[in-house]
Amino acid sequence: MSKYWSGLVRNIEPYVPGEQPKDKTYIKLNTNENPYPPSPKVLEAMKQAANENIRLYPTPTCDELRSCIAQYYGLTNKEQVFMGNGSDELLAFVFLAFFNPGSPILFPDITYSFYPVYASLFHIDYRPVPLDGNFSIPIKEFFKKNGGIIFPNPNAPTGKYITLGSIEDILKQNTNQVVVVDEAYIDFGGESAVKLINNYPNLLVVQTLSKSRSLAGLRVGFAMGHEDLIEGINRVKNSINSYTLDRVALAGAMASFADEEYFQNTRRKVIATREKTIFRLLEIGFTVIPSQANFIFISHPLTSAGDIYQQLREKGILVRYFNKPRIDNFLRVSIGSDEEMEYFLKALAEIIDAVCP
Amino acid sequence: MSKYWSGLVRNIEPYVPGEQPKDKTYIKLNTNENPYPPSPKVLEAMKQAANENIRLYPTPTCDELRSCIAQYYGLTNKEQVFMGNGSDELLAFVFLAFFNPGSPILFPDITYSFYPVYASLFHIDYRPVPLDGNFSIPIKEFFKKNGGIIFPNPNAPTGKYITLGSIEDILKQNTNQVVVVDEAYIDFGGESAVKLINNYPNLLVVQTLSKSRSLAGLRVGFAMGHEDLIEGINRVKNSINSYTLDRVALAGAMASFADEEYFQNTRRKVIATREKTIFRLLEIGFTVIPSQANFIFISHPLTSAGDIYQQLREKGILVRYFNKPRIDNFLRVSIGSDEEMEYFLKALAEIIDAVCP
Repeated sequence: MSKYWSGLVRNIEPYVPGEQPKDKTYIKLNTNENPYPPSPKVLEAMKQAANENIRLYPTPTCDELRSCIAQYYGLTNKEQVFMGNGSDELLAFVFLAFFNPGSPILFPDITYSFYPVYASLFHIDYRPVPLDGNFSIPIKEFFKKNGGIIFPNPNAPTGKYITLGSIEDILKQNTNQVVVVDEAYIDFGGESAVKLINNYPNLLVVQTLSKSRSLAGLRVGFAMGHEDLIEGINRVKNSINSYTLDRVALAGAMASFADEEYFQNTRRKVIATREKTIFRLLEIGFTVIPSQANFIFISHPLTSAGDIYQQLREKGILVRYFNKPRIDNFLRVSIGSDEEMEYFLKALAEIIDAVCP
Repeated sequence: MSKYWSGLVRNIEPYVPGEQPKDKTYIKLNTNENPYPPSPKVLEAMKQAANENIRLYPTPTCDELRSCIAQYYGLTNKEQVFMGNGSDELLAFVFLAFFNPGSPILFPDITYSFYPVYASLFHIDYRPVPLDGNFSIPIKEFFKKNGGIIFPNPNAPTGKYITLGSIEDILKQNTNQVVVVDEAYIDFGGESAVKLINNYPNLLVVQTLSKSRSLAGLRVGFAMGHEDLIEGINRVKNSINSYTLDRVALAGAMASFADEEYFQNTRRKVIATREKTIFRLLEIGFTVIPSQANFIFISHPLTSAGDIYQQLREKGILVRYFNKPRIDNFLRVSIGSDEEMEYFLKALAEIIDAVCP
């Protein structure tokens, strides 16, 4: 605490990202990164962009990339797309653009832990909606009076997905406020709500290139919705930072959307590995929440998640453990390559065997 | 205006960056970019960073780069350095971290036009301090009661510089609040206040790689100050976006600080061109505000700045014109290469000759 800090900074509890230890090399199954590199064409485009023009500001409006994404998703035009320096920055802008102090917003009680951080930073009240006993989102709770709604689909850290039908129900019941569907993990088995955009002016769909497009290190996210919503986010962005995406990130993102075959192959491989992993986990007695994401949320009836986390760490494997009510006996495990998951399953079997031989 | 916009978004007036027209190729003297590319070693480091590891998140703490900058500036340690996605983002965080609603901050009335935008976005009251008739900052106005102080040194768009002695006076009179010295242009002739950091815990120095290091397209800025101040900014950053700098930007920035000879040569060339340009402008009757920046602020007694701006534009040269009280007869002209400035001076002489032959 410093006497120079604003009242706001004294009272916030910042988000804590997954650990990035440097003491040794770990198998990293803790931050939902993609085990496969991006398309070689993406790396080539990035190298090409590392040229003398880097002395010049990048485009503040990202027109070319926004047109590319609008076309990819069958939208009407680029004015329905907003680009952010990763989807986290974009979500922060969304909280400022659409939510108001004194008008509580709704999001699940078990969800992306950045939401309450944004709310606290910008003095937005919120009411957490408790997931049911199966970690499903009780859709009807979103029909109650609110100042806006945000949830990930699939949800994090559970991986649970709700259908477009449920999302339409939520949109129809909330025509006077914005409903944000955070689709960071949608490409691993879900169906994007992007196709609903032209019918629902209150829908904002947020995606990222960090997961399914293997570009966590490049910091590119985007939002899609009615152009009035996009203009609202733009007003916030243009009051904070005119140029959020650098020239290399813009080039890499463009190239990613151009190599559809690579993208499809990569996401299919991750999905296949997830399904194989789930099968093996069930065999050794784990509870596995059905996942449409590139991670799984697992629990064992006889061994505490905290213990398993610690023992995996000692064996050189990082997974994510949240020491929070209701989920403190679960681990969130990112889907790595087949070899990484084989190593993980072997280590896990050893840990379980030691407890219940 | 949309019914979905928050009260905040309805009431903000976003910052407008310098134009980036695409109708034809201009000589761009309007956004203070460096006419020279970055060191070839920077481009090489960026290309190297465009590798398969881009699938992994970048470091959220930028430890290596912060250590490098701390060492470069003779600071005690990396905890005195904060990295941002350009200095604009960082300045937005600074407003949240150190300034409070209801406690008006001070900045010059003629200054970087993003300051009032941040203040408005975050409900920070402010009192503009009028520059004197020579566009100098009246230092003693900063001795009055305030909730914080921010100013660029050299100031923008005037280019006028105040000495470290004056900055120390301001710091001594304001020990209970933060004084932010925005040194975006300091490398073009001024002396950085960074050497005062270990003596003044209320001093925050902000710099960027966009201007003197020719990396506007890479989006890297940084702040230096007492580690309590840096922690305050970090708390804001970690409530908005964990990873603001991508892997390529981190690599490019590191390489920039490693090639000191290139950096010194480049900034000396810009300074030399500035001085030559000023000499020629005085010859054709212009008033030129003394500049320690990579731009100059100029006015002609017989021709309106708005007219000159328009005629230069027609001749394929972009400069910056601010249609605001007190400065609406001035143009801000970035220092380009010798060839670009030769072309600019020739065009300008034609325009002036037509008015007063």
